[in-house]
Amino acid sequence: MTGGAMLARGRGVTVWRQIAEAIEAEIAGGGLVPGTRLPTEAALTERFGVNRHTVRQAVKSLVDKGLVRVTQGSGTYVEAKPLSYPISTRTRFSEIVVGQARDPAGRLLGHRQAGASLEIAEALDLSPEDPVMLIESAHFADGVPISWALAAFPLPRFAEVPEVYGATGSITAALSACGVPDYRRASTRIGAAVADATDSARLEIAEGRPVLVIDSINVDPDGVPIQWARSHFCADRVRLTVGG
Amino acid sequence: MTGGAMLARGRGVTVWRQIAEAIEAEIAGGGLVPGTRLPTEAALTERFGVNRHTVRQAVKSLVDKGLVRVTQGSGTYVEAKPLSYPISTRTRFSEIVVGQARDPAGRLLGHRQAGASLEIAEALDLSPEDPVMLIESAHFADGVPISWALAAFPLPRFAEVPEVYGATGSITAALSACGVPDYRRASTRIGAAVADATDSARLEIAEGRPVLVIDSINVDPDGVPIQWARSHFCADRVRLTVGG
Repeated sequence: MTGGAMLARGRGVTVWRQIAEAIEAEIAGGGLVPGTRLPTEAALTERFGVNRHTVRQAVKSLVDKGLVRVTQGSGTYVEAKPLSYPISTRTRFSEIVVGQARDPAGRLLGHRQAGASLEIAEALDLSPEDPVMLIESAHFADGVPISWALAAFPLPRFAEVPEVYGATGSITAALSACGVPDYRRASTRIGAAVADATDSARLEIAEGRPVLVIDSINVDPDGVPIQWARSHFCADRVRLTVGG
Repeated sequence: MTGGAMLARGRGVTVWRQIAEAIEAEIAGGGLVPGTRLPTEAALTERFGVNRHTVRQAVKSLVDKGLVRVTQGSGTYVEAKPLSYPISTRTRFSEIVVGQARDPAGRLLGHRQAGASLEIAEALDLSPEDPVMLIESAHFADGVPISWALAAFPLPRFAEVPEVYGATGSITAALSACGVPDYRRASTRIGAAVADATDSARLEIAEGRPVLVIDSINVDPDGVPIQWARSHFCADRVRLTVGG
């Protein structure tokens, strides 16, 4: 059958919204599980007995609600429930992801030595232009990008961070290799932006989607700043929690 | 003079970016203070000796960085420095704004009684459809919109909230009038979205700009939930801080 009959055209709700609601109900009901591919535009067009434009509007509204994501060239996928990401003195990406029964991964994108910018120097209690190791990394849950970050570590203390992070994908392991067995989050600053081309490529989201921008400082057990980071989280895939 | 001579067309930076940098330097140097109106497009066109399209691109890049805001029909204004907004057990909008030498205001947009939604019932420890007072309000610093919120309060305990909030613009005063002299933030959940038509009108920002969406629960001194709120903050005008 074509599904045209399913749609109550008279009930005062636009047709694209009814299609969006039908797909949303399938997601909520578990008929479309996270990670599965949405039927193609052509298949939805046929199923609902409407034109491509109407289907496109319905799918766009699901993207806007963060329920599905469009990956370039390969289709539209059902998003997982947003990850709950507690901001506390003990914020660890891997622990948080594992705690929600997902598989964490970290990937080193690049690294270089540089002189500390004013902002990084202030965060790490250094003088401007003091040497720091900058690393860029991307972080995943079940293979889906959650965030990417630029981080800075004082040198020479943390010269080994890129090598160990590259091998393990774990900042905790990298800091441990540099003689820091434990660390805590001293401060967190949260803003939001819209995805630019870099965010789009690294997070696999469209430009213009919302991004949470988080500046954080970690300190060692003596309270000495050891890491400054600016992280860009895909806002559709995460909710930050404080307290409670 | 026309300012064309100021622009080093050969130095490998696009002309619009040089114009944006020149205006950014004037803002940073205090030549253009927060709240002042940017020169018109025509004035900038003349000053820099470029076409309107180039000026428009420069101004758009300043909007994208949150340095200026476009208000419908009345021009482009220099933004104030983002407000630092601490999320803690004692988060009070007015205190935060006053603490940064700005003038706070709250405006009641509307109110109605309703049955608690599933989400609100869970947050307030009620049964679904238990009666709650819903209020919508907007919050300002020096007359500039910072956030708007939908909040829910259990009934009959908080029946007076709309009247007192409408008169004082203060939730603290409204709760106090209902016999709650003090309260604390029990939980905060932070996401981000892009501004829709409602955000655009209430926050005086363009649709598509980033918005921080904050769900919070306040409890009375006995730990009883008294307020659930979903707040939409203009991300260009605020940075949330946790710890430190």
